[in-house]
Amino acid sequence: MNGFELYNTTRLVFGEGKIDKLGELIQPFGKRVLLVYGGGSIKKFGLYEQVKNKLSAMGATVEELSGIEPNPRLSTVNEGIRICRENDIQFILAIGGGSVIDAAKAIAAGALYDGDVWDFTIGKAVIQQALPLGTLLTLAATGSEMNGGAVITNLETKQKRTMGSKLLYPKFSIVDPTYTLTVPANQTVNGIVDIMSHVFEQYFSQTPSTPLQDRFAEGILLTVIENGERVLANSQDYDARANLLLAGTYAMNGTLPTGVTADWATHVIEHEVSAIYDIPHGEGLAILFPNWMKYVYKERLEKFVQYAVRVWNVETTGKTEDEIALEGIYATQSYFKKLGAPTCLGEVGIDNTYFERMANEAVQFGKIGNFKKLYKEDVLRILELSM
Amino acid sequence: MNGFELYNTTRLVFGEGKIDKLGELIQPFGKRVLLVYGGGSIKKFGLYEQVKNKLSAMGATVEELSGIEPNPRLSTVNEGIRICRENDIQFILAIGGGSVIDAAKAIAAGALYDGDVWDFTIGKAVIQQALPLGTLLTLAATGSEMNGGAVITNLETKQKRTMGSKLLYPKFSIVDPTYTLTVPANQTVNGIVDIMSHVFEQYFSQTPSTPLQDRFAEGILLTVIENGERVLANSQDYDARANLLLAGTYAMNGTLPTGVTADWATHVIEHEVSAIYDIPHGEGLAILFPNWMKYVYKERLEKFVQYAVRVWNVETTGKTEDEIALEGIYATQSYFKKLGAPTCLGEVGIDNTYFERMANEAVQFGKIGNFKKLYKEDVLRILELSM
Repeated sequence: MNGFELYNTTRLVFGEGKIDKLGELIQPFGKRVLLVYGGGSIKKFGLYEQVKNKLSAMGATVEELSGIEPNPRLSTVNEGIRICRENDIQFILAIGGGSVIDAAKAIAAGALYDGDVWDFTIGKAVIQQALPLGTLLTLAATGSEMNGGAVITNLETKQKRTMGSKLLYPKFSIVDPTYTLTVPANQTVNGIVDIMSHVFEQYFSQTPSTPLQDRFAEGILLTVIENGERVLANSQDYDARANLLLAGTYAMNGTLPTGVTADWATHVIEHEVSAIYDIPHGEGLAILFPNWMKYVYKERLEKFVQYAVRVWNVETTGKTEDEIALEGIYATQSYFKKLGAPTCLGEVGIDNTYFERMANEAVQFGKIGNFKKLYKEDVLRILELSM
Repeated sequence: MNGFELYNTTRLVFGEGKIDKLGELIQPFGKRVLLVYGGGSIKKFGLYEQVKNKLSAMGATVEELSGIEPNPRLSTVNEGIRICRENDIQFILAIGGGSVIDAAKAIAAGALYDGDVWDFTIGKAVIQQALPLGTLLTLAATGSEMNGGAVITNLETKQKRTMGSKLLYPKFSIVDPTYTLTVPANQTVNGIVDIMSHVFEQYFSQTPSTPLQDRFAEGILLTVIENGERVLANSQDYDARANLLLAGTYAMNGTLPTGVTADWATHVIEHEVSAIYDIPHGEGLAILFPNWMKYVYKERLEKFVQYAVRVWNVETTGKTEDEIALEGIYATQSYFKKLGAPTCLGEVGIDNTYFERMANEAVQFGKIGNFKKLYKEDVLRILELSM
């Protein structure tokens, strides 16, 4: 196990009706609030109205930024920054999934920075201060509700990049499973793939002797696999929705990477794919991850054997380690397929036109990943396997 | 799953050599420091010297309170409170295991309270403020390094009671596995039993649909079982010590009780036993827990079947659920025995003289536990089973 620091400053407020705490949770930070959200679903299902009433009850002045995109854009973030400055906003409340929360984080950092907020994604500046933010989560997926990371897309340059800071941890996140009962099947599936992918990035590590982290990761995967199927069979299954949400939060709240050197290469590659084609992150991951696995599994065969046995219950009798590991990888791919996720790039209308560019961009800051260090040629190979 | 809040404000700083961060971690809180520790082992192994050098390097003024007992006493806590007040202490640094940390927490709360610190344990007062504290952990056991609870013993009245507050979370805890390489076998064993018992209290719950919490709990148990044996075979096994420490922290840092109605009856009973006989907490738990299990398992048989199968790998073919559950319970008891822990009260010199009193005290505030509500007669029965 490596040395590490674990320090998570987000207050997770989980359960039905927890929105009743909203006023009390925002109160310490001020009354000039920016509401950030996506499309019309929060209006359709009454959540918008509820939030407005709570904010009104606490005497808040509310500005709004709506229409946050599934891959949130720099231009939208800049619009939010402008609103914050013009209205002297004291607190940002994000209502939505990971994209909305990520946009809110970027706005929180940009509002108190003199330069271009994009600087934070390219290492040109470090986040020194940020407006406080809180979230009302409506989708089990990114885990952004309990960490300090954000992913933003620059449409002009077709780049998708990450920024992060301890200052961007939400002060609170209200997670009420009833808000996710109306999430459509395809978005539910993308969320499931996203959660599992986060676990993979941290689980497939070369760090020796991390039994607790392994068990936690496997526990999240098993929970997602079981409850993902339950939710798709019955979208109104509160317990299964709750279990998915908690799994999604734990997959990215700092529990899994303690003492572990994580990988993250597949996320980097997926960001290059969806920066150009604007496909949902979950679809890109469903296609790429099993192929990354096939490409790298021999680098630490015993970890993939453990994965196959503990997560997919692969029978080992009479099989080589190689066969067991591959069976686990195929089980992953089959599960994604069973959920209705795409399994190759062709299915989502992507051919090899931009493979060179994607591979170049993926390794622009140097080789990626840690389970196996990937160079441009490796990225190209994984993209080709994914065709 | 129940609703819940998860908010843990302790910075966990884990790994070899992390003591180098001590000055930087204390700095924000002030330079008048009270050092709290137990016996001579931290002096014997050089840790005391290291800490004093770090504090001296940061220009701190240091007072000391040593000789904290394994079941820390109210009188010692009061001595610490006096030192804090007389020296206008700004920060308390605990070096040791759970007892030392618990004493430091009680001192932190008492130093800023006008009345008797014991008030916090009997519901006569609520902690409104506390001095900040930090810890250097030297034993994998109580998890006190990452929560806001403390257990204190009043020797005069022979009572052992709990106090707790969000204000008592350590600001930081430095956990360096090398400090635990010299822990003697019996203390290591008591720590293992303590960690497993914490998990049991939160795992054996009547709350339905908590698959992630279950997997996390089982993951901690499996990690402790495997690494406990490794440590006892080779006390110098850094990796195994590290894994035990991390498991101990996670067993009590708020991860397991999220959304779950925990039990805690066995801890209440054990506190009554060790308040009178002053035996180590771990020994009391090793004796009582398997007998609590035998007494209550039929209240939710399937949970004990799950425990037997997932934690002890109990073969199920041709057995009734009752048999499977009991086999899991016997495996628990056998494991404790294998570690060298006592399995009945007689082994530690306790007979039934005070059973009535223990049972009365255990239920003085009403029935205890949630997996099965225990009345005085139930407590007596569990004590008798433990003879």
